[in-house]
Amino acid sequence: MKLTTPPRVSPQQFDVAMQAMAGVVGKDWVMASDADRDAYADAYAPGPQEQWPAGAAVAPASVEEVQALVRLANEHKVPLWPVARGKNLGYGTAAPRMAGSVVLDLGRMNKILELDDKLAYCVVEPGVGFFDLYEEIQRKKLPLWMSVPGNAWGSVIGNALEHGIGYTPYGLHARNLCGVEAVLPDGDVVRTGMGAMKDNPAWHLFPMSYGPTFDLAFTQSNLGVVTKAGIWLQPAPESSLELVFDIPEAGDVGWVVDTIAPLKISGLIDQNVFIPSWLGKMVLKGQRKDFWDKPGAIPEWRVQELLKEHKLGYWQVALRLYGEEPVVKAKAEIIKAAMAKNLKAPPAENWWRSGDPIHAYETTMGIPSAVPLQMSDWIGGRGAHMGFSPVVPATGKHVQGQMELSRKIIDSFDVDFYASFTIGGRFANNVNMLMFDRDQPEQIATMKKLFNALIDETAKAGYGEYRTHLGWMDRVMDTFDFNDGALRRFNEKVKDALDPNGIIAPGKQGIWPSAYRDQAKEGRA
Amino acid sequence: MKLTTPPRVSPQQFDVAMQAMAGVVGKDWVMASDADRDAYADAYAPGPQEQWPAGAAVAPASVEEVQALVRLANEHKVPLWPVARGKNLGYGTAAPRMAGSVVLDLGRMNKILELDDKLAYCVVEPGVGFFDLYEEIQRKKLPLWMSVPGNAWGSVIGNALEHGIGYTPYGLHARNLCGVEAVLPDGDVVRTGMGAMKDNPAWHLFPMSYGPTFDLAFTQSNLGVVTKAGIWLQPAPESSLELVFDIPEAGDVGWVVDTIAPLKISGLIDQNVFIPSWLGKMVLKGQRKDFWDKPGAIPEWRVQELLKEHKLGYWQVALRLYGEEPVVKAKAEIIKAAMAKNLKAPPAENWWRSGDPIHAYETTMGIPSAVPLQMSDWIGGRGAHMGFSPVVPATGKHVQGQMELSRKIIDSFDVDFYASFTIGGRFANNVNMLMFDRDQPEQIATMKKLFNALIDETAKAGYGEYRTHLGWMDRVMDTFDFNDGALRRFNEKVKDALDPNGIIAPGKQGIWPSAYRDQAKEGRA
Repeated sequence: MKLTTPPRVSPQQFDVAMQAMAGVVGKDWVMASDADRDAYADAYAPGPQEQWPAGAAVAPASVEEVQALVRLANEHKVPLWPVARGKNLGYGTAAPRMAGSVVLDLGRMNKILELDDKLAYCVVEPGVGFFDLYEEIQRKKLPLWMSVPGNAWGSVIGNALEHGIGYTPYGLHARNLCGVEAVLPDGDVVRTGMGAMKDNPAWHLFPMSYGPTFDLAFTQSNLGVVTKAGIWLQPAPESSLELVFDIPEAGDVGWVVDTIAPLKISGLIDQNVFIPSWLGKMVLKGQRKDFWDKPGAIPEWRVQELLKEHKLGYWQVALRLYGEEPVVKAKAEIIKAAMAKNLKAPPAENWWRSGDPIHAYETTMGIPSAVPLQMSDWIGGRGAHMGFSPVVPATGKHVQGQMELSRKIIDSFDVDFYASFTIGGRFANNVNMLMFDRDQPEQIATMKKLFNALIDETAKAGYGEYRTHLGWMDRVMDTFDFNDGALRRFNEKVKDALDPNGIIAPGKQGIWPSAYRDQAKEGRA
Repeated sequence: MKLTTPPRVSPQQFDVAMQAMAGVVGKDWVMASDADRDAYADAYAPGPQEQWPAGAAVAPASVEEVQALVRLANEHKVPLWPVARGKNLGYGTAAPRMAGSVVLDLGRMNKILELDDKLAYCVVEPGVGFFDLYEEIQRKKLPLWMSVPGNAWGSVIGNALEHGIGYTPYGLHARNLCGVEAVLPDGDVVRTGMGAMKDNPAWHLFPMSYGPTFDLAFTQSNLGVVTKAGIWLQPAPESSLELVFDIPEAGDVGWVVDTIAPLKISGLIDQNVFIPSWLGKMVLKGQRKDFWDKPGAIPEWRVQELLKEHKLGYWQVALRLYGEEPVVKAKAEIIKAAMAKNLKAPPAENWWRSGDPIHAYETTMGIPSAVPLQMSDWIGGRGAHMGFSPVVPATGKHVQGQMELSRKIIDSFDVDFYASFTIGGRFANNVNMLMFDRDQPEQIATMKKLFNALIDETAKAGYGEYRTHLGWMDRVMDTFDFNDGALRRFNEKVKDALDPNGIIAPGKQGIWPSAYRDQAKEGRA
């Protein structure tokens, strides 16, 4: 990809900035060739990658180098787009929102600084991936479990900062963050919580600061570059039981949610409960063309045939309990009795006890896996996906209503419907996975129109997305319309105060510094 | 109390401002007489109330009135000190940090806007007290339990914003906040989380915003005036079991914490576990003079006699489990077995089942009570108390070390030692309650010196306070010394951007707007 420079920066000025940054990190860690720019493009871009081009990438090895780079970014007016490991697939991967931004690749900062099995937490740098942390825990044979997203290629911190979710009792990853270190846009370093006191041992244990608490203000944020953070981990339980329920009909999701959510809210179930539809299983069994080889959505009669052939319910709920065996048994009886009110078939029961082997693909036990990426093969060609991800109240009425709404819209575009709901407490995260072949321009054109329609119609129904792809960050921010966009106004005021040159991640989540507010219309999908 | 005006405001200018504010709220709701000022003084002030004098108080009835008052405060350069119900006893009550600030009394905004038993949350205005909410839940016979602080005189929102704690599974009150509405220092109104979209039903259910999340940035904060918030409530369990353990020796607290904290972190115990020392029971049995009538601390031999006479352990742990009976039973067996390793005597067991009456003073069941205020009578005269409240890791080593440290300091001032620890997860909140007679100047002088010593010595040991009294807000902020006070620097930068005239709560938690930074040395105790 050819060079695109940031607004009002000439190629010569950009080159001077890159040379200055090379003085900080060494020239091997400034990546500014056409091939480098390709490497940092969005591999799943819905459209040409050139729509979200990085000017270059630079990879620091320490907090001090991050500080120096941030100061140079101010001096040269070259904005930085921080990524942890750049694996935010479906939401933009490593590519920046604003054309010409320099990707600040934190992948080299990959130290596990603390790993404490007694108080069950770790302190990591952004470059630490789920697989890295998992291997370290295994190597040290520590009784700790992680919470991982479906596809665990990425960074532990990066995923938490982007509000990623997993399927364990620690599944709301941003809520596991405790004590953050961030480099501010002026190059200063701040530590939140008890870490604001030197060497305070409660930094990663007590989740509040003395005074205002900003940990979550650094998530989905362009207020600073998070350089380390504490993450709470799950103490390994002595036993665990999986209850697998096949739920026959699409319309059953209402009672399923009305059965499970109260048990989740009461604390009987502590896991984030994942409710995926049948396509989640099918993508692991082959490619789409093996089951339906015509364009357009798989028709309903064929869906029903496939469910019968493969003995699948429309939804499958693999619910997992954790803890001491007598407690788990007592909980399981209550769950089974509650589900039996609407479902005759008893669940499959899979016990695990301390010392038993764990399957490689057990996200509900915190084992990192990249199996869900199999999905990209489903459609064929250069397969990719996007997720449309609104949040709804965890009631059958809202979940069913949202399911029907998105299904109707997706059907009307003749696209396969593949939904999941994850009950995280009082809310459910709905992900509508949209798969497409990047080499089929008409598929991409459809996807973009469909995505717009989903955002707009879902907002009309009153729901908002909890994260989104680069190309829709502004459109989604537009849907947050209370008091004429008060939240954006507030965010931009704080942004301008902390970052007068707008050099950290301009446009992130639709929040623009005044220096680049004129760019908000560019790069929209 | 005579009029003290804010810095650089003459009595005449102040009067003009008060008249303008009366134009918003009506003249009955501007309270500016000497008697009014007394009413808003710190009833527990360690020293003369005149040290933290309000200029007046003004009580709005709506968000719109708050906006109008904030705009007038900017116009007249008269700062506001928001209080919910002004019951922050031991930390300053309703009094402002900066002399002459006008107390913004939100007590009239006392509507319960939503109360949802299915998703277990409420939406309340700041004037709603724990007793108000409790009565409304009882009146509607809803299966909801609250979490209340020991003394529940105050506001539900105010307590959560000040990082108050309770003794239920919802005991970390700030973490129950979900979706905040705040009037900003410029009079604008913002809603966080999904409330940034008009009429989004997930506002008080999903705890994150699209983009940065600022809910906790409005706690212990002067960045805005919180005018309503969602608060998560506990679904009423079908049964509950209290296990009461008497712990004989002061030095036992180490193994107690090492037994309970892992069960709390693993989720077997979901309650915040309160571990008070014996004096918490004694203050309910009479006055200090009934047990020891000499000045100075009660000597150790007399403490041992009292414990024997009253059949008290040095500590008492009243642990409570909640949920379905078979689950509670299974959990109880595990806890009893764990405690039995160090304690021969089995616990007293008190079962409660749905429909049973609940005692009026059951903080572990979320019943609001003012019984702990009894403490103020212990010392006699105009009794008052202050709490020295550091946070430590929830391990025996840290808890025991902190206990011994504060005990040594308190002993050296010849003052009674009355400590408690609350295990909130990976951390424990330590409160050292210091009781004094406001009519004994030498007691007050001792208290102030003691409090300074506690802050300084505890910070040297590496621990910080999670909240403190007005007079020590700056001193405690001084202990947060990482990177030359980076957290304060960051806070003050944000503060100045949002509040250029510094009119919301200057000095709150040691954070001063530039307009009043010259006042930071005034009002220190």
